[in-house]
Amino acid sequence: MRNIKLILAYDGSAYHGYQRQANAMTIQQLVEERLTKLFGHPLKINGSARTDTGVHAYGQVINFFTQGTIPAERIPLAAKALLPPDIVVVAASEEPLEFHARRSAESKIYRYRIVNTRLPNPFERNYAWHCIAKLDTALMHEAAQAVVGTHDFSAFRATGGPPVTPVRTIMSATCRDAGNSVIELEFWGTGFLYHMVRNMVGTLVEVGRHRLTPGGFGAILAGRDRRAAGMTAPAQGLYLVEVKYENEIVQK
Amino acid sequence: MRNIKLILAYDGSAYHGYQRQANAMTIQQLVEERLTKLFGHPLKINGSARTDTGVHAYGQVINFFTQGTIPAERIPLAAKALLPPDIVVVAASEEPLEFHARRSAESKIYRYRIVNTRLPNPFERNYAWHCIAKLDTALMHEAAQAVVGTHDFSAFRATGGPPVTPVRTIMSATCRDAGNSVIELEFWGTGFLYHMVRNMVGTLVEVGRHRLTPGGFGAILAGRDRRAAGMTAPAQGLYLVEVKYENEIVQK
Repeated sequence: MRNIKLILAYDGSAYHGYQRQANAMTIQQLVEERLTKLFGHPLKINGSARTDTGVHAYGQVINFFTQGTIPAERIPLAAKALLPPDIVVVAASEEPLEFHARRSAESKIYRYRIVNTRLPNPFERNYAWHCIAKLDTALMHEAAQAVVGTHDFSAFRATGGPPVTPVRTIMSATCRDAGNSVIELEFWGTGFLYHMVRNMVGTLVEVGRHRLTPGGFGAILAGRDRRAAGMTAPAQGLYLVEVKYENEIVQK
Repeated sequence: MRNIKLILAYDGSAYHGYQRQANAMTIQQLVEERLTKLFGHPLKINGSARTDTGVHAYGQVINFFTQGTIPAERIPLAAKALLPPDIVVVAASEEPLEFHARRSAESKIYRYRIVNTRLPNPFERNYAWHCIAKLDTALMHEAAQAVVGTHDFSAFRATGGPPVTPVRTIMSATCRDAGNSVIELEFWGTGFLYHMVRNMVGTLVEVGRHRLTPGGFGAILAGRDRRAAGMTAPAQGLYLVEVKYENEIVQK
């Protein structure tokens, strides 16, 4: 029995999120179906994180068990012939049997892209949030530092999410001009609550519009009341960039 | 009667090209329908150039006549509410009655994007040509200089195109690494034959793979035989960037 780890990049625009659902096509279902063809037996994949409808990934990690003999390094090209062009296997490796894409994960990096122009960019409509009001990225970056550390993130937790502890640790939070009127926010943390990144971004945009101060943003986090925070930023701006595991060389 | 000029940016992925067709949705048909709603009377638009199925535009130019009174500067935002998000009016102006988007055009700039990586990028599948073989962009740039000037472009003309003169003038042709494994080719010319840019790119890629020398590329142009040239590069990498008119300040 071999335990295979894959890194997937996908454009989530056409899928109802990562996790299998009864009546809608998801990343998980499609990848399981195509890997089943490739390996010649039914298989079930573990994903590092669910991504919602329209959310993208540069580095979603999955693992699965197989008795198939295809060498790991051949999987990316073999999968290319089976998967649609909006899902790409960018890396494959064989891991110890105890490796689990979600449970072994030590931290994740999410990115959120905003296009900050008066008129929308037709090429970004599925890949960023279009914000018309001019945003102050330096002030957004300053405010974002409040989330670094270990906090109760109830203020940025989706109502109706799973009943898990709201305490999470964020190692870094950045907001920068990425050129071409694109603003990129990036959050590196040990774990994220459902909609947590999108709720933080929706509230940081209020700071960028000068409708909330960095101090006010910190007070919302400390207040642990979802109703005090801003809107949930739309799904299409969010990217799961990287999942880090123990014993990996940390490159950031 | 007013003559309105619009600059359109569009993602051509979902359309059967620019020009109206009997049984398929095109940019022209959609824009005419929505402008008819905006101005309250049927109208017909003139486009500067046809773009094929899957070809994109940053700066397609159209014009139309109207007795409507909407100020030109209000059209971009008004059109935003009526058009789908993959077509954007980026500028609008009122022009002299003799202005015609195609006939008044003095020159056009086309860009072609190639992603040069072993594995495809899921976010570029509709926006670039994925070339696996490593391309020598410096050699492609050198070869491309052969097309600068006034030439008979029969070698790069689509078979079955309209019976027009094959002589065209190209002011500049460039090929450069644009970062992130993206290669950009750009052609500025007074006019282009049907599929001419895509046929030049398909042949320049042969140079980039060292299967054809810059001298061999020049000989193909001089030979005026379409059968000697390379493949037609796929539509999704092509962008109509800009259309220039007389009396405009030349910015390039």
